[in-house]
Amino acid sequence: MVLSEKEQKFKVTPWEVQGDVDYDLLVKQFGTELIKPELLKRLEKHTGPLHYFLRRKIFFSHRDLGWILNKYEGGEKFFLYTGRGPSGSTHLGHLLPWLFTKYLQDKFDVELYFQMTDDEKFLYNEELSIADTIRFSKENILDVIACGFDKKKTFIFSDIEYAKTLYRIALEISKHVTFSIVKGTFGFNNSTNTGLIFFPSIQAVPSFLPSVLKGKNIPCLIPASIDQDPYWRGIARYVAPKLGFYKPAQIHCKFVPGLGRGGKMSSSEPETAILTNDAPELAEKKIMNSFTGGRATIKEQREKGGTPEICPVYHYYLYLFAPEDKELNEIYQDCTSGKLMCGDCKGKLGIRVKTFLKDHQKRREKARDTVQDFMLND
Amino acid sequence: MVLSEKEQKFKVTPWEVQGDVDYDLLVKQFGTELIKPELLKRLEKHTGPLHYFLRRKIFFSHRDLGWILNKYEGGEKFFLYTGRGPSGSTHLGHLLPWLFTKYLQDKFDVELYFQMTDDEKFLYNEELSIADTIRFSKENILDVIACGFDKKKTFIFSDIEYAKTLYRIALEISKHVTFSIVKGTFGFNNSTNTGLIFFPSIQAVPSFLPSVLKGKNIPCLIPASIDQDPYWRGIARYVAPKLGFYKPAQIHCKFVPGLGRGGKMSSSEPETAILTNDAPELAEKKIMNSFTGGRATIKEQREKGGTPEICPVYHYYLYLFAPEDKELNEIYQDCTSGKLMCGDCKGKLGIRVKTFLKDHQKRREKARDTVQDFMLND
Repeated sequence: MVLSEKEQKFKVTPWEVQGDVDYDLLVKQFGTELIKPELLKRLEKHTGPLHYFLRRKIFFSHRDLGWILNKYEGGEKFFLYTGRGPSGSTHLGHLLPWLFTKYLQDKFDVELYFQMTDDEKFLYNEELSIADTIRFSKENILDVIACGFDKKKTFIFSDIEYAKTLYRIALEISKHVTFSIVKGTFGFNNSTNTGLIFFPSIQAVPSFLPSVLKGKNIPCLIPASIDQDPYWRGIARYVAPKLGFYKPAQIHCKFVPGLGRGGKMSSSEPETAILTNDAPELAEKKIMNSFTGGRATIKEQREKGGTPEICPVYHYYLYLFAPEDKELNEIYQDCTSGKLMCGDCKGKLGIRVKTFLKDHQKRREKARDTVQDFMLND
Repeated sequence: MVLSEKEQKFKVTPWEVQGDVDYDLLVKQFGTELIKPELLKRLEKHTGPLHYFLRRKIFFSHRDLGWILNKYEGGEKFFLYTGRGPSGSTHLGHLLPWLFTKYLQDKFDVELYFQMTDDEKFLYNEELSIADTIRFSKENILDVIACGFDKKKTFIFSDIEYAKTLYRIALEISKHVTFSIVKGTFGFNNSTNTGLIFFPSIQAVPSFLPSVLKGKNIPCLIPASIDQDPYWRGIARYVAPKLGFYKPAQIHCKFVPGLGRGGKMSSSEPETAILTNDAPELAEKKIMNSFTGGRATIKEQREKGGTPEICPVYHYYLYLFAPEDKELNEIYQDCTSGKLMCGDCKGKLGIRVKTFLKDHQKRREKARDTVQDFMLND
C-alpha cells in the first residue's frame, strides 16, 4: 500500500505516530532524505506489497536508496550490512531492523554481512571485560539467526574474532580519518581512549568488506536506526571515494520506545524493555506494568479517549504486533474514541508478546546448532 | 672488561665518543639511568667477559636492568623484545641492537619476540602502501634471521599478519591510553590519523605477549636505541600495572651515524647508509666516499691529526668493525697523532664491510628456507 497524497498531508496518522522523537528534525539535521512515494513504488516493483515497516514509515529515511535500485535494476546486486553492539541481552527494539533486513534479503536475494562490535562495547563501557562482550556477542548472535536469515547468504562476524581481516582494511580507512574527523562525528575529546578513537575505522570496514573479499566493487545497503546515520556519513561514506569504493547507501528506521514514559528501549533498563531471553510470563507482566497513553480513570478514558501518540503499548502494536493495518486502525480508533480500555489493550498485547517470545526462544535454541555455518573466521 | 673509575672520569675515550648526539642530556631528559660499573659487574657474572657494546658504552643506558637481573637470579627468566619498522631496506645501524639482542639471547638462553611494525610504517608514510610495508617486512626479516637467532626461541611477527592476537591485547591496553597521553608522548595532534593514534597500543603488546600466551607474568627486557625510550615509558610501562603485568625493562644503545656529516644512519639517504642488500663493492665505494674527521691536506693531517669524535669511519670501527679494544685504541691513537691517513683507514674498513656483507648476504639468502620456523601466526 502506498500512502495517498492526502494521507501524506496529515502529520499524525495511525502509522505515523512519532512519540518523543522529532524525526523530521533528525532528517533535516543529518541531511538524509525521507522515503518518498515514488521510491516506495519503485521498491514495490521488486518486493511485491510493501512491508508494513515501509507503509507505516517505521523505515522512513534513506541515503542513496534510489541509486541502490538503479544498480540492482542494472544487474548489480547489492549486499546488506547491519550489526549489533553486544553490551547486554537483545531486546525487541533490536529485532526490528533485523526483521526488516531479513525481509530485504528474501525479496532481493542478497548477502548480509552482520557485524558484532564487541570491541566497541568493551572500549566504551568501563564495566565490561572483553570476555563479557564476547559472551554477549555469542548470545546476541542466536537472536540474529533466530530471525531466519539464509545461512548460505549470511556472514556474521565478531570484530575481535575476525580482527585479522578487519584490521588490515581498517588501516586503509584510518589513514584517511584524522582525530578532527572523529572528534566532530562521535563527540570524542582528549580524554577518549585511543581504542575508541580507532574504532570508527573498524566499524566502517563491512561497508567495503565483500568488495575486498571478492575483488570487485559491490554496492552496500545498511538498514539501521536513524541515530546511526552520522557514523556512516562521517566515516564510511567519507572515505569510500578515497579508497575507490561505492559509498554505502542507508535505509533508516525509528526507535522502538521503552515501556516507561518516553525514550527508546534499552537493555540497561530491563523493567521497561522486553528482552528476547525474558521468561514469556515476565515479558507479559512487563507489558501489564507499562506506562500507557490512557487517562487517570476509566470514566475519563471513556469520555476523552487515550493518547496513542505517547503510548508505548500502542507503539508495540504499530511496530511489531499488529501487522494488519485494519486491526491497527481499529486499535487507534477505539483508543482515541474511549472504547478501548488500557487493561484490555495491554492484555491482548501481552498474549501476543508471550507467544512471539516462546516461538523466538525455540528458534533461538535451535540456532545453537547452526551458528558455525553463519560465522566468518580469519 | 669493566672501566676503571679513572677511565669513567674522562668524558671522551676511544670507546665513548659521542658524535653529534648529547647522550647524557637524553638520559637526563628521558629519566633513564646510565649503566654503572656495578651493574656491568653483575652482568659479567652471567655473560662472562663483557661484549664490547657494553665496554664501549654503545649500550649505555637502561631502565630496571637491575630488577631484570634480580628476577633472573631468583630463577625467573625474562624474555627479549625488539622490533623493526619496515619502511625500507635494513642498514648496518639496524643490525647493531639486533646483534646485541642475539648476544643476550645466547648468554641468558631466553626467548625473543620480534615485532615488524608494518602497520605503523603504512600509517606514517604517505607514500607507502600496505603491500609495500609487508614486502619490506619480509625482506627485513631475512636480515633478522641472518643475525643468527635461535629458531626454537625466536618468534617474529608482522603486526598486520598477526593482528588477531595483537588487536585483542591492544584493546585492553588502549582502554587506558587516552588521546592526551599519546599526544604528549608521540607529538600527535588533531590532524594525526586515527590508525596512528591507536598504534602505540599495538606497539605495547609484545611487552606482555608471552605473559598472555603463557598465562603467567614474565619479565620483559627491550634492547633498543635510546630514542625509543619515551614510547615504552609512555605506554607499555604506564599501562603495565593497570593490567597486572610487569613493566618492561629496557637497555638502550646509541645511534650508528650515517656516512655524511652528522646525523644517524637512515635508509632514506642511501648514499650515506650501508644497506644489507647493497652490492659489497658498492658498500666499499660508499665507505671510500664517506665524510671523515680528517684534515684538508695530508700535510695538515700529519701535523695535527684527525678528529675521530666526528668521523663516521671511526664510528664504524667503534661500533661494528674493530671489536678488539687494542686495535681500536691503535686506530684512535694513530688518527689523532697524524700517523693514519683517511684513505688507508677507509680502505681497511671498506674491506671489512665488504667481507661482512658477503657473509651476511649468504646467511640472508639461507634464511629464506627457515623463515617459516620463526614466524608467529594467528
